[in-house]
Amino acid sequence: MMALVRPQFVLFGDSITEQSLRPGGWGAALADTYSRKADIIVRGYGGYNTRWALFLLNHLFPLSCPTPPVAATIFFGANDAALLGRSNQRQHVPVEEYKENLRKIIDHLKECLSSMLVVLITPPPVDEDGRKEYARSVYGEKAATLPERTNDMTGVYASECVQLAEELHIPCINLWSQMQQTPGWQKKFLSDGLHLTAEGNNVVYKGVLQVFNNAHLCAEEMPYDFPHHSEINGDQPEKVFQQKI
Amino acid sequence: MMALVRPQFVLFGDSITEQSLRPGGWGAALADTYSRKADIIVRGYGGYNTRWALFLLNHLFPLSCPTPPVAATIFFGANDAALLGRSNQRQHVPVEEYKENLRKIIDHLKECLSSMLVVLITPPPVDEDGRKEYARSVYGEKAATLPERTNDMTGVYASECVQLAEELHIPCINLWSQMQQTPGWQKKFLSDGLHLTAEGNNVVYKGVLQVFNNAHLCAEEMPYDFPHHSEINGDQPEKVFQQKI
Repeated sequence: MMALVRPQFVLFGDSITEQSLRPGGWGAALADTYSRKADIIVRGYGGYNTRWALFLLNHLFPLSCPTPPVAATIFFGANDAALLGRSNQRQHVPVEEYKENLRKIIDHLKECLSSMLVVLITPPPVDEDGRKEYARSVYGEKAATLPERTNDMTGVYASECVQLAEELHIPCINLWSQMQQTPGWQKKFLSDGLHLTAEGNNVVYKGVLQVFNNAHLCAEEMPYDFPHHSEINGDQPEKVFQQKI
Repeated sequence: MMALVRPQFVLFGDSITEQSLRPGGWGAALADTYSRKADIIVRGYGGYNTRWALFLLNHLFPLSCPTPPVAATIFFGANDAALLGRSNQRQHVPVEEYKENLRKIIDHLKECLSSMLVVLITPPPVDEDGRKEYARSVYGEKAATLPERTNDMTGVYASECVQLAEELHIPCINLWSQMQQTPGWQKKFLSDGLHLTAEGNNVVYKGVLQVFNNAHLCAEEMPYDFPHHSEINGDQPEKVFQQKI
């Protein structure tokens, strides 16, 4: 089995997606797993909320694209859930709008390719102590005393994300809830109370992989692009390429 | 500064390119470095020589592509240099043909986009003891006693690669020569006498980065795709997108 063109999986989200290409990141791990099977295209935009993400849709996913991605993860909410009246309020998006923005993103992707596997990922939980420590490490005495995000409020956004996935019958990884089932999640999975450690990245990687596997996008079962070298006849190399291409 | 579409850098080669997305790999490191600046597209084909690579050219780099890559690395030779009459002779390509095949690949890429930055990379040196140990670990008593590759013969291929780059005035990373300048290169840079350790990957990463930097493809100087979130006015987010897109 072989393929001529590798399918694309796009990871669309905020900083947690943008940073996924770092060593130990979930995007890097997916790229390795799908080596010669699919291209992992990272479209993560640090600091973005769903309202700002809408401005990118037609550019990142033009409706006229002849080869749209076959799968996409949508991973927003950590910034939408920033609280009003706190240091990051510029990023705040009301929860009802967050849900509707996610719906618009999904509608757009399905319009690109109705069979696209669209996977929602909720924001991870917030460790408020970790955020305070981080703020002190950056701003010292001037650090805001009130957290700019709370775990409870982020949980409200996560819950809307899960509900939307159920409504639309698409898969969803409830990271907010899943991570909190592990004792010590605050330091184990989060590096600064919000972004992911290597172990936190691994939770996302495994979650995405499971959804892809369930949706017949299992790397082991996907064809290589072009013949494995052992299939090439040294004396007549053109044969396998002519047959299969 | 911002860009609407990220430029593509393609890494074209054999297993040493295919494996570059593994943790610590040079492809993964480039993808991280050029995050939000360029997409690193890995097109590595384990076991392939330049003769077989030619069959892929029109598929991987169609001449009609409206957005060809702006840069490409060509990293073949480790398989071409497999010796006749030894266990891997199926992969052998005579050195004159190796050079002409490289020329065809370069010509094709330049036909796609005459301004494309094409970078040649020579095969790494071969640690013959390392290859023997590897063969024994896989085949035990049945392992061939004569090495399937020698460092000297691979050096001949590396030398032709360097000469071609000089002829065509394109940059070349002489990995074969460069690695051997470090005492203990055999185990430091090579995991099985042929493929790269994390440190070996780092040599390739640094070499490619230097060439890219010299060619005005320095990540720090390249624009982000879409505005940095700090440029977005919370009350009028459309402003920066309308201005810049």
